[in-house]
Amino acid sequence: MTKIAVAGVGLTKFGEMWDKSLLDLAFEASKEAIKDAKMNKNKIDAVFVSNMLIGKIAGQDHLGAVIASSLDLNCASFKVEGACASGGLAIHLAIQSLLAGTYKNALVVGAEKMTDASTSQITWALMGASSSQERKAGLTFPALYALLAQAHMQKYGTTREQLAQVAVKNHSHATLNPKAHYPFEITLEQVLKSNSISYPLGLLDCSPITDGAAAVVLSATESSGIFISGSAVATDNIDLAQRDSLTELKATKLAAKIAFDQAGVEIDDIKIAEVHDCFTIAEILAMEDLGFCPKGEGGKFIAGGSTQLGGRCPVNTSGGLKACGHPVGATGVKQIIEITQQLRQSAALRQVRGANLGLTQNVGGTGATVAIHILQT
Amino acid sequence: MTKIAVAGVGLTKFGEMWDKSLLDLAFEASKEAIKDAKMNKNKIDAVFVSNMLIGKIAGQDHLGAVIASSLDLNCASFKVEGACASGGLAIHLAIQSLLAGTYKNALVVGAEKMTDASTSQITWALMGASSSQERKAGLTFPALYALLAQAHMQKYGTTREQLAQVAVKNHSHATLNPKAHYPFEITLEQVLKSNSISYPLGLLDCSPITDGAAAVVLSATESSGIFISGSAVATDNIDLAQRDSLTELKATKLAAKIAFDQAGVEIDDIKIAEVHDCFTIAEILAMEDLGFCPKGEGGKFIAGGSTQLGGRCPVNTSGGLKACGHPVGATGVKQIIEITQQLRQSAALRQVRGANLGLTQNVGGTGATVAIHILQT
Repeated sequence: MTKIAVAGVGLTKFGEMWDKSLLDLAFEASKEAIKDAKMNKNKIDAVFVSNMLIGKIAGQDHLGAVIASSLDLNCASFKVEGACASGGLAIHLAIQSLLAGTYKNALVVGAEKMTDASTSQITWALMGASSSQERKAGLTFPALYALLAQAHMQKYGTTREQLAQVAVKNHSHATLNPKAHYPFEITLEQVLKSNSISYPLGLLDCSPITDGAAAVVLSATESSGIFISGSAVATDNIDLAQRDSLTELKATKLAAKIAFDQAGVEIDDIKIAEVHDCFTIAEILAMEDLGFCPKGEGGKFIAGGSTQLGGRCPVNTSGGLKACGHPVGATGVKQIIEITQQLRQSAALRQVRGANLGLTQNVGGTGATVAIHILQT
Repeated sequence: MTKIAVAGVGLTKFGEMWDKSLLDLAFEASKEAIKDAKMNKNKIDAVFVSNMLIGKIAGQDHLGAVIASSLDLNCASFKVEGACASGGLAIHLAIQSLLAGTYKNALVVGAEKMTDASTSQITWALMGASSSQERKAGLTFPALYALLAQAHMQKYGTTREQLAQVAVKNHSHATLNPKAHYPFEITLEQVLKSNSISYPLGLLDCSPITDGAAAVVLSATESSGIFISGSAVATDNIDLAQRDSLTELKATKLAAKIAFDQAGVEIDDIKIAEVHDCFTIAEILAMEDLGFCPKGEGGKFIAGGSTQLGGRCPVNTSGGLKACGHPVGATGVKQIIEITQQLRQSAALRQVRGANLGLTQNVGGTGATVAIHILQT
């Protein structure tokens, strides 16, 4: 595909932002991204907003217009939703509108304000990402991913310790990210001893409830900088019970193949990746389904250190969803920002040396939607 | 812009569909559109779903994957939301993805299931289209549009009777549409005597709470049939209190100008239009802002009969939102279907003779989002 430039990025602190509204967060990230792009805001001709939950939590829909209004823009505006993959979908659709030649510069803003809601409210809201059958069965997302983890352990001998290692690595990375929700180390023992949420997943295998916003300005007119050279989305059956396999996310494989073809690169070319570690098992599945290692060997692969900072291909240098945090609508956009900062060589203490080609994998629900992006210098 | 074909259309009955779920309705419309396109479903490579309310009403988000799953498709899928303009936005974004060359055939499905919800639940859900300030002030949508109507009456002398005439005309058209929610005539006297909802709007000035789904297959590869030659979206401040004027919807003007330029046509070329008559005042504003008549003369223009079947440019031959019904997410897609059927000369009893160029105007909230499409043979 024709490459689209990431002209500017803006990111709020991720965490429990009790003094800020969703609009405050989205506005802050947007202004920063437009400033970073060194662009007059009136050059923005489309605004894509990614959000899943604020309608249910606080009643506000129509976010495209809300956020465009806050920026005093009369250009086209849209809200895009695909559960936790909303950010990746918004990036993908913004790219389409630029490739079409209809717009020249698109602002993509992902934002979520989750900590204002009660636990029952947020659980109900998040379960909108699953099928109605799964909700009726009383499943929650930790339980759904626990089923995937159990299947993987049973079929491939993946261990509880290997799952825990994902969380340990990502917390270690987060210590180097000033925007991270949980910028502190955790030990393998702490993960293993954390309260069981749904076996085998303990509390420290699960990504947190986070507030935050992430924005990028994508441009069809920039000729230098960081570019998106692959952008693909695929869908799988939303019901786990209807899937062919519980040990892979088929949509990751399908979308990755398209994105690699578009960019003309292979998995071995990738120097850095941000993947959707909503639960520790998800990062293991991502490694396998993206082709970083053979099916069944994801746990061993991660525990071996290749995806740590200093390894061959560091994964989730931001801290990932686990430790940087997971404000649902912002996550897919934040992944693009982390890779952009790495490719700009501006990731400070967590910089991956020689990073020139990166990948993001953003998952909705239990893999019913997957968006893959490939970025390069 | 490069023209995109409307290759197939599918529409459920609009009404109180108590025996059908949102998914039933979306599936029915989608299957019909794919069949109408004479296309193997596996040729669909992207699914765009338009919906505003089901997350709040029944908890189900992630509708792109839900509906793609129901069709057993693994292609890209998305949900697009922009309040009552969601359908128009989904059409616009599907067009972008086709113009980009990324996809060849896109299914756009708009669906809403409103009658399962209680009155307070649906009122809360719909108010997500407004600003938080408007919600805090206790405003509802009839009240917001009543403010627009009062301003118009005060500034231009528009009368209560002229407002009512819009409802009378659209009900008259709906008698010829077997899919309409309210396919019966109403009299001017009935509208004037209907219970006051928010002065000057009575019950019969307001569009109803409706269930229904509408689907179209858009194609970049078809070389004959009906085409979309203009597609534009614009945004205005979401807060009425922040607008420059209460007697126009600026976003309609902005989007119409772009769409006319794209299609290379003028308002006088338009032979038929479907506009967003959520309240009777909205159709008066649409006539003026689209340029069918000078500002301030919309009431007189409609009462004069030009937009009735048999007039120079019939408007809302489907019955409009008022009488065909307004299942929010479906409305913008249904407008495209009505114009397509007219241009195909397949609108049966409500056929506009010689219809070869049509327009749709789909409004979100009180005009914070407007999507305009131009269709031609």
